[in-house]
Amino acid sequence: MIIQLQQGIPATVKENILQQVKSVGFKANEVQTQEGHYIVGIGKKDFDIRTLGQLPGVADIHRVSDEYKLISRKWKVNPTLIDLGDGVQIGEGTFSIMAGPCSIENEKQIELVVQHLKENNVKIMRGGVFKPRSSPYAFRGLGLEGLRMFHQICRENGIKIITEVMQVSQIEDMLDFVDVFQVGARNSQNFNLLDALGEAQKPVLLKRGISGTIEELLQAAEYIFSNGNEKIMLCERGIRSYETAYRNVLDLNAIPVLKAKTHLPVIVDPSHGIGLRDHVEPMSLAAVMAGADGVIYETHQKPEEAFSDGQQTVNFKESERLIKRMRQAFELRERF
Amino acid sequence: MIIQLQQGIPATVKENILQQVKSVGFKANEVQTQEGHYIVGIGKKDFDIRTLGQLPGVADIHRVSDEYKLISRKWKVNPTLIDLGDGVQIGEGTFSIMAGPCSIENEKQIELVVQHLKENNVKIMRGGVFKPRSSPYAFRGLGLEGLRMFHQICRENGIKIITEVMQVSQIEDMLDFVDVFQVGARNSQNFNLLDALGEAQKPVLLKRGISGTIEELLQAAEYIFSNGNEKIMLCERGIRSYETAYRNVLDLNAIPVLKAKTHLPVIVDPSHGIGLRDHVEPMSLAAVMAGADGVIYETHQKPEEAFSDGQQTVNFKESERLIKRMRQAFELRERF
Amino acid sequence: MIIQLQQGIPATVKENILQQVKSVGFKANEVQTQEGHYIVGIGKKDFDIRTLGQLPGVADIHRVSDEYKLISRKWKVNPTLIDLGDGVQIGEGTFSIMAGPCSIENEKQIELVVQHLKENNVKIMRGGVFKPRSSPYAFRGLGLEGLRMFHQICRENGIKIITEVMQVSQIEDMLDFVDVFQVGARNSQNFNLLDALGEAQKPVLLKRGISGTIEELLQAAEYIFSNGNEKIMLCERGIRSYETAYRNVLDLNAIPVLKAKTHLPVIVDPSHGIGLRDHVEPMSLAAVMAGADGVIYETHQKPEEAFSDGQQTVNFKESERLIKRMRQAFELRERF
Amino acid sequence: MIIQLQQGIPATVKENILQQVKSVGFKANEVQTQEGHYIVGIGKKDFDIRTLGQLPGVADIHRVSDEYKLISRKWKVNPTLIDLGDGVQIGEGTFSIMAGPCSIENEKQIELVVQHLKENNVKIMRGGVFKPRSSPYAFRGLGLEGLRMFHQICRENGIKIITEVMQVSQIEDMLDFVDVFQVGARNSQNFNLLDALGEAQKPVLLKRGISGTIEELLQAAEYIFSNGNEKIMLCERGIRSYETAYRNVLDLNAIPVLKAKTHLPVIVDPSHGIGLRDHVEPMSLAAVMAGADGVIYETHQKPEEAFSDGQQTVNFKESERLIKRMRQAFELRERF
Repeated sequence: MIIQLQQGIPATVKENILQQVKSVGFKANEVQTQEGHYIVGIGKKDFDIRTLGQLPGVADIHRVSDEYKLISRKWKVNPTLIDLGDGVQIGEGTFSIMAGPCSIENEKQIELVVQHLKENNVKIMRGGVFKPRSSPYAFRGLGLEGLRMFHQICRENGIKIITEVMQVSQIEDMLDFVDVFQVGARNSQNFNLLDALGEAQKPVLLKRGISGTIEELLQAAEYIFSNGNEKIMLCERGIRSYETAYRNVLDLNAIPVLKAKTHLPVIVDPSHGIGLRDHVEPMSLAAVMAGADGVIYETHQKPEEAFSDGQQTVNFKESERLIKRMRQAFELRERF
Repeated sequence: MIIQLQQGIPATVKENILQQVKSVGFKANEVQTQEGHYIVGIGKKDFDIRTLGQLPGVADIHRVSDEYKLISRKWKVNPTLIDLGDGVQIGEGTFSIMAGPCSIENEKQIELVVQHLKENNVKIMRGGVFKPRSSPYAFRGLGLEGLRMFHQICRENGIKIITEVMQVSQIEDMLDFVDVFQVGARNSQNFNLLDALGEAQKPVLLKRGISGTIEELLQAAEYIFSNGNEKIMLCERGIRSYETAYRNVLDLNAIPVLKAKTHLPVIVDPSHGIGLRDHVEPMSLAAVMAGADGVIYETHQKPEEAFSDGQQTVNFKESERLIKRMRQAFELRERF
Repeated sequence: MIIQLQQGIPATVKENILQQVKSVGFKANEVQTQEGHYIVGIGKKDFDIRTLGQLPGVADIHRVSDEYKLISRKWKVNPTLIDLGDGVQIGEGTFSIMAGPCSIENEKQIELVVQHLKENNVKIMRGGVFKPRSSPYAFRGLGLEGLRMFHQICRENGIKIITEVMQVSQIEDMLDFVDVFQVGARNSQNFNLLDALGEAQKPVLLKRGISGTIEELLQAAEYIFSNGNEKIMLCERGIRSYETAYRNVLDLNAIPVLKAKTHLPVIVDPSHGIGLRDHVEPMSLAAVMAGADGVIYETHQKPEEAFSDGQQTVNFKESERLIKRMRQAFELRERF
Repeated sequence: MIIQLQQGIPATVKENILQQVKSVGFKANEVQTQEGHYIVGIGKKDFDIRTLGQLPGVADIHRVSDEYKLISRKWKVNPTLIDLGDGVQIGEGTFSIMAGPCSIENEKQIELVVQHLKENNVKIMRGGVFKPRSSPYAFRGLGLEGLRMFHQICRENGIKIITEVMQVSQIEDMLDFVDVFQVGARNSQNFNLLDALGEAQKPVLLKRGISGTIEELLQAAEYIFSNGNEKIMLCERGIRSYETAYRNVLDLNAIPVLKAKTHLPVIVDPSHGIGLRDHVEPMSLAAVMAGADGVIYETHQKPEEAFSDGQQTVNFKESERLIKRMRQAFELRERF
């Protein structure tokens, strides 16, 4: 059960509502976000929700039988639109392209990618400065210093930044240099990180776990929302399977299923999904037709020399073709 | 190694080639199909293939390092086109739609589906008369009698038939009433059935196993080809995973990967793949954009009353919309 | 619902029971096996089963809510014991060891294995003559001729034979030379083969599918039983997973779960399970402690020269140690 | 390549070795733990390691071709023994039992469990105070306050504590109240947490990820070791699969494989593994026979009233039987 509160109600009015929720046998969770003020009631009792709906201070009330509540489409039918400023919006009805290298490597590389994105009217650049690596001896990214460099070049060129955050203690340091925090597959159930990002107010792109279920992904998003941040996108990035012909199984089934269950935008990462450069294009186009609200993929001026993930990274020429075709596919989808 | 023989060479010439193949340390498999006459050499010795290429009777010779040989794109770059007669062709450059109920139920049902297909210019109808069922007590299909009825109505209306064959002993009885034999996921490694279908000359649609690998699917196709039948299509129909939000994970990654590895047509079954009626359309459209040569899906006049698989079956109105959109998506893909 | 009929009841009495079952809204399936005569009622209506239990000709009646019926422990609490003759029994309370090569290769090999088994008081030899192989170009076994040789040597030495049957048409030819028919993982849902083995009366060892569920394995056994054959053992042989450190994941969880659900014996195949020779012993011992009624494993006089599966085959010295230790572990388990 | 340094060598001697490692084209990582001082060389060049082995300050040098180095059995053949004090040791040759509730609930509960453990001579109690939960609205544990209570009762009774740590910032607060830090499956690739635990010097039990590979588990352990902490145990706790008949697939194959690859102790968690109370015993006994160095399982005075995981928790009577049988099985294994 979700109760939307009226704006700016007095504490006593709110307390009264909380008491009433508890009195019908529900656990009451107060949630205050950038966008609204809610009470989430958790419980299974059967009662007439109108008795709560008529209380002073209540704007609206909704039953939500899912385990996740605030991110469910059952109460919020309109899709969430996330505004990054300067006219850059993410969400249903738009198609967002986020592209860039796996790892930020140096100034020259950032400039080349930024140039490529500008030429193709792409507004969001991806690039990792904190890299989760299986081996402790592998390159772990340029860190904060790299992020500052990344940020300066992007800001000068009107490009927004999405980059991965790996732990709570990085959030504050990164906050001013990031437009979207990315939570990687390995941290998809790092609940403390999700809590902290809920308090951070910046948009978050949340990746599905290595073998994450749809339900787990949605619950992870609920962590962020219920801590105060509604600006969440979900990202399908391939699931682990027995198949060795590709890196992961990019699971496009997740797209229509997520779109039906939640009002949050759904983004697809074909690079990590299939993990094979030659097949990034068909998987991206398929993602568009399956209903994705955006695609995040890896591109690099010389993929074969990239610090990481070169085998799944397309070059700028391939990237340009991909961008054009995705936009054509999106146009067709919008005409349906 | 594949040696293409010239047409109609004398037995002695052929024997000489076989001997030469063995003499370089390879196992020699002679394969005679509707289309050609081959010797498949299995082995790993390194030698100059031109020594064999120059033998009398040899039309061409190719190295193929894959485990599968005759179905590989390494020697046959041109895609296989399968002709069902009356102008109905399956393969790269065309887009085939095969639709119909999970199970053939009765005359009325067949007529309604046929009518629906004709109205939408769809040339191939699917429908099961032998149904593999998990439980021995479930409905197992109308059998041969159902097939004869199915065949008569389709023939009168110029519609081709694809239907599942479950065992070797059914092939002969079904032969005259079928345009494409379908091999189901549970029989994808029923090697005796594959051998027999190789001898049967009718086109075969071969489904990927429940948890079948790409390699296993290709090897299964090699069984059919090496027994004499080149008319094979591969079908992605969803793989088993831990995810319970959908029936299977329709694995669209398989499409570009299979298209790169083999010259055979690749068909997608979104109905069994995602298993949810509402999401058959986005997955079908995604399949088109990922490069599929066709789609096979379930439709029924009243899905909720279907004998089987109703939850993943679309009604005629949804089917009509789906057909139109798939054709538009295919058109766009062809323009790329 | 399972109705056990009295022995030798007149047709009219049976017909009356069938009618009564149908009249309460159930589908009635008559099953006649070596051991008994049953009517399996399929349906979900709620009614007082005593009304059927009191009919003439009814020996007993049981509710079974599982999808599988006759193989359920819900009606038959006592475990099934399978008698191969000459004092060789398989089932709860005994521990059966079945060992031998992956493939039957030649007379000498059979004799060496038989000698090894006799020295260790092992009564059942495994060995394949029909081999399901991923590639059509691989060795497919010695066939019927090999089986006759296998049978002759074993009969002379008092050893029972278990070997794989791949298709219906082989059953009749194999019947006189086999003590237990093995159904391989790839045929675990070859329903026509299961039907035919149900009619064949010989004991059957049924392997779990490549990614077979517990439920599917039990339903496959129900196919055999409901066609007339109660002599069934189930075999855990490893499931497919994402892990590449071993061939399959030998799933010992299946043992206690299957033992709780069915009265049939449960056998474990550690060789195909983990697929690594060095680890066959610990997995076998683990299987004993988890409650398995037997183990089937691969041994060969020179594993590194075996025609197939050498990497998972133990030599005779390792086999001897394994047998001794499994028996000690079984003794301990029996003392619990 | 691992270079063991002599104790207390001068900085200049060490620097010289580091330089020499780099000069042969390797990346040199210095590692100082409680037990030793190492240089881990990462690279693939071929050279005579004796040239480095003869340098002043080098105690020993080993090639290790695995991706993980310091935890490999290739250089350290002797098993790691972890000493918790008061005669409590974990590692090969011993068999450790760790038992207790999923969540610490209150003083009374802790006392009852402690009493049960003492009666059965079990020295280590498990119990969560920080609980990773899928839903943000679920009980998340008693936190630090609960841990202090847990610690006080255990210390008075000579019981060691193992409990889960979820984030870096908790380590310092927990340090004095914990004998073993547990890293849960969801944090198995939380690399910052692993780094920090490497610096913390307390023993760590590291669980395999939800769908973690053997390789990933070993690499995660390498993170801890290479940050300075050799006191690591690995824990198999079940992997995610398509099977719904049990919670996870407890993967006992991991035991012999891990034991062969690493010198670290291997512990098994049957409670989370199979997730069904009735089957915890057979899976635990199987784990013993497969070679586990210990078992960690859930027990509670009234499992059906436990705050969490009741369905997989055994009561004290079952626990007592389990302990006795595991010890008998271990005795048998040691006699082999």
